Amino acid sequence: MRLATLLLSACLLPAQAVVAGQTRIPQAALDVAAQLREQALADGTAWRVVESLTTEVGPRLPGSEADARAVAWAQAKLRELGYDKVWIEPVTFPTWERRGESAEVLGAHAQPLVVTALGGSPGGTVEGEVVRFESLEALRAAPEGSLAGKIAFVDQPMERARDGSNYGKAGAVRSRGPSEAIRKGAAGFLMRSLGTTRHRVANTGITRFDEGLEPIPSAALSLPDADQLARLLARGPVRVRLALDCGWTGEQYTSHNVIGEITGREAPQEVVLIGAHLDSWDLGTGAVDDASGVAITMAAGHLVGQLPQRPRRTIRVVAFANEEQGLIGAREYARRHAGEVANHVIAAESDFGAGRIYGFNTSAPESAQAAVREIAAALAPLGIEHLPGRGGPGPDISPLAAIGGAWAWLGQDGSRYFDLHHNADDTLDKVDPDDLAQNVAAYAVLSWLAAEAEGGFGSAPRPAGANE
Amino acid sequence: MRLATLLLSACLLPAQAVVAGQTRIPQAALDVAAQLREQALADGTAWRVVESLTTEVGPRLPGSEADARAVAWAQAKLRELGYDKVWIEPVTFPTWERRGESAEVLGAHAQPLVVTALGGSPGGTVEGEVVRFESLEALRAAPEGSLAGKIAFVDQPMERARDGSNYGKAGAVRSRGPSEAIRKGAAGFLMRSLGTTRHRVANTGITRFDEGLEPIPSAALSLPDADQLARLLARGPVRVRLALDCGWTGEQYTSHNVIGEITGREAPQEVVLIGAHLDSWDLGTGAVDDASGVAITMAAGHLVGQLPQRPRRTIRVVAFANEEQGLIGAREYARRHAGEVANHVIAAESDFGAGRIYGFNTSAPESAQAAVREIAAALAPLGIEHLPGRGGPGPDISPLAAIGGAWAWLGQDGSRYFDLHHNADDTLDKVDPDDLAQNVAAYAVLSWLAAEAEGGFGSAPRPAGANE
Repeated sequence: MRLATLLLSACLLPAQAVVAGQTRIPQAALDVAAQLREQALADGTAWRVVESLTTEVGPRLPGSEADARAVAWAQAKLRELGYDKVWIEPVTFPTWERRGESAEVLGAHAQPLVVTALGGSPGGTVEGEVVRFESLEALRAAPEGSLAGKIAFVDQPMERARDGSNYGKAGAVRSRGPSEAIRKGAAGFLMRSLGTTRHRVANTGITRFDEGLEPIPSAALSLPDADQLARLLARGPVRVRLALDCGWTGEQYTSHNVIGEITGREAPQEVVLIGAHLDSWDLGTGAVDDASGVAITMAAGHLVGQLPQRPRRTIRVVAFANEEQGLIGAREYARRHAGEVANHVIAAESDFGAGRIYGFNTSAPESAQAAVREIAAALAPLGIEHLPGRGGPGPDISPLAAIGGAWAWLGQDGSRYFDLHHNADDTLDKVDPDDLAQNVAAYAVLSWLAAEAEGGFGSAPRPAGANE
Repeated sequence: MRLATLLLSACLLPAQAVVAGQTRIPQAALDVAAQLREQALADGTAWRVVESLTTEVGPRLPGSEADARAVAWAQAKLRELGYDKVWIEPVTFPTWERRGESAEVLGAHAQPLVVTALGGSPGGTVEGEVVRFESLEALRAAPEGSLAGKIAFVDQPMERARDGSNYGKAGAVRSRGPSEAIRKGAAGFLMRSLGTTRHRVANTGITRFDEGLEPIPSAALSLPDADQLARLLARGPVRVRLALDCGWTGEQYTSHNVIGEITGREAPQEVVLIGAHLDSWDLGTGAVDDASGVAITMAAGHLVGQLPQRPRRTIRVVAFANEEQGLIGAREYARRHAGEVANHVIAAESDFGAGRIYGFNTSAPESAQAAVREIAAALAPLGIEHLPGRGGPGPDISPLAAIGGAWAWLGQDGSRYFDLHHNADDTLDKVDPDDLAQNVAAYAVLSWLAAEAEGGFGSAPRPAGANE
């Protein structure tokens, strides 16, 4: 009830001096934020939400039977958490299925290898000699046609990093590797998983084949299996059989972005958007990617909604459809809401696991920097540093940012994220409830203060593709 | 060459005073042991051996095509390591195969579960309601017939322990659980893996069905999957489909114990036996279970064999066939060599991973305790404590011990062993080369000093089944 008292005081205070054109945050809102932060740290809502999604729905591959269950789950959960409005917006995309996958070394050292098909890979069984490349660059440098009938194996390692920056660098192996291999004549593609775990789990993730190329079976090896294959190749030629039963089904599927609002008391059409993606890969239960993000943002909005009075602006939580296969839900959201960019005051996504947040930044212009510093000060007790120049919009915020939406970045410690990302180990037990609560506190503080701010953070319509 | 000098000095020394009937170790042998110990710590032989076996042969399920490759590998490796005699002794047993396995929750929370068939399980597909028991005792207490058509799920946890003692306690879930479930009418059996890892790998291992019972498909869940199933069951009834394609083939297979000797210079018929088992389960590459033991003992004998002169007695390294399905090679060894028990001066097995050795003990009688204390003193610089009353013969030594063979125990730190034991994570990268070298040093010191000792360690024929 202390929050109630504070909030009432805020409404009774005389308007403070405002620097013309400068975004400001009322002191009373800052006081509430401090209490909200402490309350969030002690709150178990997000843990219960991530437990519920990962247990009751489990893996939720876009277009699968579980996709529809996830959409129903998200609507029910938002209602249960007291959101004022809950609705869905359709998102249509082609579906890809994984039905089976295996690989084995043939011949004198015969043994199975742990693999997983890359999302988007065609099915098929390929048997051939393996040619190893230490990097994507090395594959690119191979002579044309030199891999005819062979299996290309790109064994490029990815180092652990707090900010996940190595995924950006190594990610091209997955996105570009298969097409490069096809150009050299390869019949199959294997890669070292984009991961950092020493366990026997391989990391999937979407790949695309360039136009005009005939797709080939493409899969990732667990790190111990990649090392094993490298050791065998050091001894002499190795033949592998790669058997994938998977592929695009040819069907279109309609899923949904699921949206809940804590409706603003003064400016309900002005929206602070926080979100995450509802879909996951199929190997784990998508606990850190991205049930945690769904839980963090749902719980943050819920805690603001528990205040005795609604925030000045609307807080909108979006659980995006099909992030994994190309930000499909996020692109549809940006397309559908393109006319409302200016009303999207600021947007942030939680999609980098469940590690503690260490950094904060925004795309806000100078006119909003005083307010941003106030938000940073409110986040500082959570161990979060204001890091101007760092971060960016989350994946699902980027289509909105591209057309002019302002973004905030709450950078999570991703040191262990790639132990779990897109592999079978992404399960509930990897989520730390205290770390999760710290995330909720940050999102609650950010969304509350942005909703209470007087003035904006720089959102303005901009044609897609214009320079930011 | 310092070893050569020491050894020559040993031969030139006058015989020291011997207490009648007491086993003693010449001082010169102790001096050589100290050098052997330091040499072993700096030696990479064992690492190369474990790398070779796990890479070139990989998993080696008893009776599989890889079993024969492992036998050929072991003979070649012993010859390469300079053993004086290398031979094989046949071991015949029935074969069990794993061809495929899956499980899934059905209905409103449909999702796959990571399982692995228990060794000895029949194949078959079972679909039924799951009934969870917190322990084997709870399953035993269930009313007769209460599981008719259902799947029993024993969710008994196993705690981490340095000495692995919890495996002894929890092991009955695997060995006894399926038969108990059948007696209650169950159509299928699931258990929480006997493991300590939070990763998405399930632990296999042999089970037996009591005479007169119709075997049912029996499998283990990874720990995250066991927890997931428990959470789902807390929400209401859960139906699971368990599909196993595996079973005894009905074929008999003849594998071999592979034996190498560093032949004794004075008493070649007297044998210090050190060994490990050559077979492994099929999910990993059997790196810690038990390629490490094979490597440790092969390397220890090799280092003694590198001395300028042979030890007084023979050091015999045995790579036992098919330990995993019931000590089958070890039983055959004891049967075949039953008449030579008195000549098996002492025996030790390395079959508890690749962790550092922390404890030492033997079954030696009082008359040999002075010598045992000398050995313990030579092991002490390795961080190994003399722990009278602790340990026992390794699994593959137990049939020999049962008919009167003396044993030594070099107790390894097994704190992390059950993260890897019988699951897919048991791969080379989990072996620490320094820890492995410490093990080799201990086996080299033990086998050298036992071979140099004057007097025995208590081996004497005893009818099988007599009290020890």
